[in-house]
Amino acid sequence: MSEPIDFWFDFSSPYGYLLSERIDEVAARFGRKVRWHPVLLGIVFKATGSAPLTLQNPAKAAYSLLDFARSARFMGIPYRHPTRFPLATQTAARAYYWLHGQDCALARRFAHAVYRALFVDDRDVSAADTILEIAANLGVDRSSLETALQGQEIKDRLKDEVGKALAIGVFGSPHVIVDGEPFFGADRLPQIEKWLESGGF
Amino acid sequence: MSEPIDFWFDFSSPYGYLLSERIDEVAARFGRKVRWHPVLLGIVFKATGSAPLTLQNPAKAAYSLLDFARSARFMGIPYRHPTRFPLATQTAARAYYWLHGQDCALARRFAHAVYRALFVDDRDVSAADTILEIAANLGVDRSSLETALQGQEIKDRLKDEVGKALAIGVFGSPHVIVDGEPFFGADRLPQIEKWLESGGF
Repeated sequence: MSEPIDFWFDFSSPYGYLLSERIDEVAARFGRKVRWHPVLLGIVFKATGSAPLTLQNPAKAAYSLLDFARSARFMGIPYRHPTRFPLATQTAARAYYWLHGQDCALARRFAHAVYRALFVDDRDVSAADTILEIAANLGVDRSSLETALQGQEIKDRLKDEVGKALAIGVFGSPHVIVDGEPFFGADRLPQIEKWLESGGF
Repeated sequence: MSEPIDFWFDFSSPYGYLLSERIDEVAARFGRKVRWHPVLLGIVFKATGSAPLTLQNPAKAAYSLLDFARSARFMGIPYRHPTRFPLATQTAARAYYWLHGQDCALARRFAHAVYRALFVDDRDVSAADTILEIAANLGVDRSSLETALQGQEIKDRLKDEVGKALAIGVFGSPHVIVDGEPFFGADRLPQIEKWLESGGF
């Protein structure tokens, strides 16, 4: 059994969302699992001296908005650019890690639901209420999650993951690692497929 | 007859080089021509507040070096990262426009030769001597080109092209425009193909 693929992303990353809709099925085709790692791009950008695409120069910002939507159409994935963008995702990420500690499959369904709430239904996933509602719709006990989100343990867990991301060279989202090889961007999916198929190229 | 496709690039851009090896054949498959526009990314980056990938944060710089070479292998294109990088390309770009004024096909052969000299043979294409030698090998009269490169006319021409690039929103290389639709990066080639095939998607 090969090592799992690592998928680093931020819940407010459009290209992270696009890749989230494909990465598991691509990996499964080659008998591989994927470990999902939500992180906070705000901290990554601060540490690396970078910025969100839509807050860089006006030409790049305008192009990025066009490319998010066109890349989604190209990949056959629904996309509506969020009214609030970028937005804070620490509550979503902490909820993910807490759920993951109890039920990996549930955490995966929750991650998809958060991404779709933001990039299809234009929900405010920075609000704790939205996150609690999304989790509750998946059968999670709302008050247990609400309590967990206040705890230091889950805050430390997210902090650790962001620290790990920086330590291994993550500088944006999505960032995928296959057997030590890094791939940045949803547009690297064809290269990831070829890498999985041939064990490198 | 449809309008030509516009291909904006800098002679020191690795992804520009990769796209230069494919864009004409892709366009030809759909009965389209390509207009090549070498520009100076240094000026574009200054105007837009950006920087070359390898001079951004260390994590992104390291990944970029890896991705240049891997993307080349993925596309089946020879690539050796240049010893001098990035480097000045105004002489190459001016020579291109001067040759283009006399013989479009020759200018295209010259552009390929400059890109391959840099990204395959590791030549110093910032040196006027290298540019004159490359042109001479294609049958160009060396002293005529040498004289033209000193003239104000060809300097103004390059300045105009850089100004046009900025005016239409070029923020990096390669930047391709198909019927008004912009595509940034060699990795957008599959989207360009789909666009040409279907007239938009």
